[in-house]
Amino acid sequence: MSTALVLQSDFGLSDGAVSAMYGVARSVDTSIFIFDLTHDIPPYNIWEASYRLMQTIIYWPEGTIFVSIVDPGVGSDRKSLVVKTASNHYIVTPDNGTLTHIDHNIGIVDARVIDEEINRLPRSGASHTFHGRDIYAYTGARLASKTILFHEVGPTYPMESIIRLPLHQAKISNGMASGIIDILDIRFGNIWTNISRELFQQLGVEYGETVKVTIENHLKIVFSQVLSYGRSFADIGLGEPLVYINSIDHIAIAINQDSFAKAFEIGTGSNWLISIQKASNLSSK
Amino acid sequence: MSTALVLQSDFGLSDGAVSAMYGVARSVDTSIFIFDLTHDIPPYNIWEASYRLMQTIIYWPEGTIFVSIVDPGVGSDRKSLVVKTASNHYIVTPDNGTLTHIDHNIGIVDARVIDEEINRLPRSGASHTFHGRDIYAYTGARLASKTILFHEVGPTYPMESIIRLPLHQAKISNGMASGIIDILDIRFGNIWTNISRELFQQLGVEYGETVKVTIENHLKIVFSQVLSYGRSFADIGLGEPLVYINSIDHIAIAINQDSFAKAFEIGTGSNWLISIQKASNLSSK
Amino acid sequence: MSTALVLQSDFGLSDGAVSAMYGVARSVDTSIFIFDLTHDIPPYNIWEASYRLMQTIIYWPEGTIFVSIVDPGVGSDRKSLVVKTASNHYIVTPDNGTLTHIDHNIGIVDARVIDEEINRLPRSGASHTFHGRDIYAYTGARLASKTILFHEVGPTYPMESIIRLPLHQAKISNGMASGIIDILDIRFGNIWTNISRELFQQLGVEYGETVKVTIENHLKIVFSQVLSYGRSFADIGLGEPLVYINSIDHIAIAINQDSFAKAFEIGTGSNWLISIQKASNLSSK
Repeated sequence: MSTALVLQSDFGLSDGAVSAMYGVARSVDTSIFIFDLTHDIPPYNIWEASYRLMQTIIYWPEGTIFVSIVDPGVGSDRKSLVVKTASNHYIVTPDNGTLTHIDHNIGIVDARVIDEEINRLPRSGASHTFHGRDIYAYTGARLASKTILFHEVGPTYPMESIIRLPLHQAKISNGMASGIIDILDIRFGNIWTNISRELFQQLGVEYGETVKVTIENHLKIVFSQVLSYGRSFADIGLGEPLVYINSIDHIAIAINQDSFAKAFEIGTGSNWLISIQKASNLSSK
Repeated sequence: MSTALVLQSDFGLSDGAVSAMYGVARSVDTSIFIFDLTHDIPPYNIWEASYRLMQTIIYWPEGTIFVSIVDPGVGSDRKSLVVKTASNHYIVTPDNGTLTHIDHNIGIVDARVIDEEINRLPRSGASHTFHGRDIYAYTGARLASKTILFHEVGPTYPMESIIRLPLHQAKISNGMASGIIDILDIRFGNIWTNISRELFQQLGVEYGETVKVTIENHLKIVFSQVLSYGRSFADIGLGEPLVYINSIDHIAIAINQDSFAKAFEIGTGSNWLISIQKASNLSSK
Repeated sequence: MSTALVLQSDFGLSDGAVSAMYGVARSVDTSIFIFDLTHDIPPYNIWEASYRLMQTIIYWPEGTIFVSIVDPGVGSDRKSLVVKTASNHYIVTPDNGTLTHIDHNIGIVDARVIDEEINRLPRSGASHTFHGRDIYAYTGARLASKTILFHEVGPTYPMESIIRLPLHQAKISNGMASGIIDILDIRFGNIWTNISRELFQQLGVEYGETVKVTIENHLKIVFSQVLSYGRSFADIGLGEPLVYINSIDHIAIAINQDSFAKAFEIGTGSNWLISIQKASNLSSK
């Protein structure tokens, strides 16, 4: 039984690109199982590709082969890697920062650099812009179908050489947890922070209590309110904001049935700082 | 052979949520077949989730397991159900009105309430906001793979207790069929009514004849014209409107290669009333 | 083992239409493998449907069954065909020009007209607007599952009668290659021309050299610049334009990490002419 092949890209689904990758994978082995993570990563957004992998891979069976292609450096001398994670999943990707969150939150235990002479769709040598089809999907399918084994993709690659994007570490001090807004829960406009449940719990806040949340962008305060901390949206009324633990165990903020990100024009990235403290700790003023 | 598992949600496909549900289902049984109904239900739109199920399930083989997650009440005391339909399909869903059209148009023959202590992804207890992954996809996959049987999901649930959204009944009187605009054929901008072919045929209109169509919103007439009734768009010219029987045997209105909904700013729901009468019955004026 | 069934349409994924086709195919044979080309063809855009087929089918295994439904003439007397390509793939489609690029670039070796009395989803006769579900997906699934063979869909159809859209032939003269802008690489805003690598190479331009590119729309020049010709975006800086060979071996133009089409408001079709000459051949001025 072949393991699953799961594809992620910034290609969108509006033309034939993703379908061509599926066809290549089926051409390797017609019994292969192919699925999508998402193909709607914003073009060239390596950070989001990295985050979506971290968010998703552990829900798939061990051994699953992931292929992620957000590849603004296609055609440069950037390496193509296959890594094995501590969770026993495999990721095929250009080495451009896509492995940042996997490395930090889950761990990488082995890495190989793809020998592109061997691992390349036959007769595809003349195209220099679609390695997703010609190298990554092809190699991922050969791994998923066990046509080749991990160590056969190419030589060992030093794990410390893998490219990492800079990460902002959440921290706690003086009864205040602080971090950044990592990403949006796109469809609903909820904001997701890099503050973990464990860190947050050191504030000693119980469900039903309130916290003071401050969000800054480039040193300017764009949001500062006392909010409820609850299990889920059912704990508050329609249109009210809520601090909660999201589906990957991080602190998040939502408005019940509305978009928090849109309502307060909140963005994501290392310039979007968030701090949270227990409201009952606030000095009266 | 496992039966198919078909997923519907309002999650969109732009992040890792749907893929995590696929991974959970594959983790239950790697031989499972997973498909999508749509993940583009507008956020929190239970009416549309209900309608899309009704529109689709009968085209799938008997025994197919559908999971629908439009769940604004996640974390509240709303029940989680599995129902068996008169068409011998199964639907796993929060009990929030999602079963309205299935109940009305197809029929529900048995219902069980999910025991969430038993039917929950192992080690997922700390997250309170993603029951789609932790309960619904997990339970759907266990049903599709026959890991558990229908009666094992939990105790019988009284069918009369299932939550229904208010439905507007189409009717005919004095040679006029009247109903509401249920939903749009989104991509093409056609409007779909709740007037069935059977009801409409009582007007005695033949293909090629004309009907007077009036659309009201909050008592204000927004459209009133005499239109052709035809088999399909081939019966009229480009840019012309047409009354026709749609793919689920209801009366619909389109403009050939244009959007009727956009052209006349027509919406959907119980405030959008439509009435149709045979044009030859109109008094001269 | 059934061969794959690959679906393309202009239906979008936001309602139940595509899922109903999947269900019909699974109802024919539950062991069938179903995939998508794209369902995001702009409504009624036969040209783009034709192009996406040409761009994609050769990456799928021989014998794969493609179903393409962009069908503004549904309900008219337009024929429904199944053709066999020179690449040994099968395409099920209304005969409305969808086969234009396949015919021109790959070749059609046999054609059959679908007998719609036989090849129609049982009990679907009353609907006249969803042949995608009732005839095309149904017939495609019966072919993919080998329930019927190619010659059983209906009588032979004369290949010269297949409807072709007008094609503009790229050509070279006086050291200038000229053609049209066929289509966009939608997600990235790159423009794809009908000038093949072979034709372009007759200009004798090497990687790293420059070319003069002129784009005209309705006789008005909308772009005229000297651009680099390179292997991939890695050859130029961020925000710079590049002439390159795209993933289907045609000449294309991109801006590195930006949209060329948007930046210069470039469209597609036979009114969008492009000409390219070697920059070193330009007379000094």
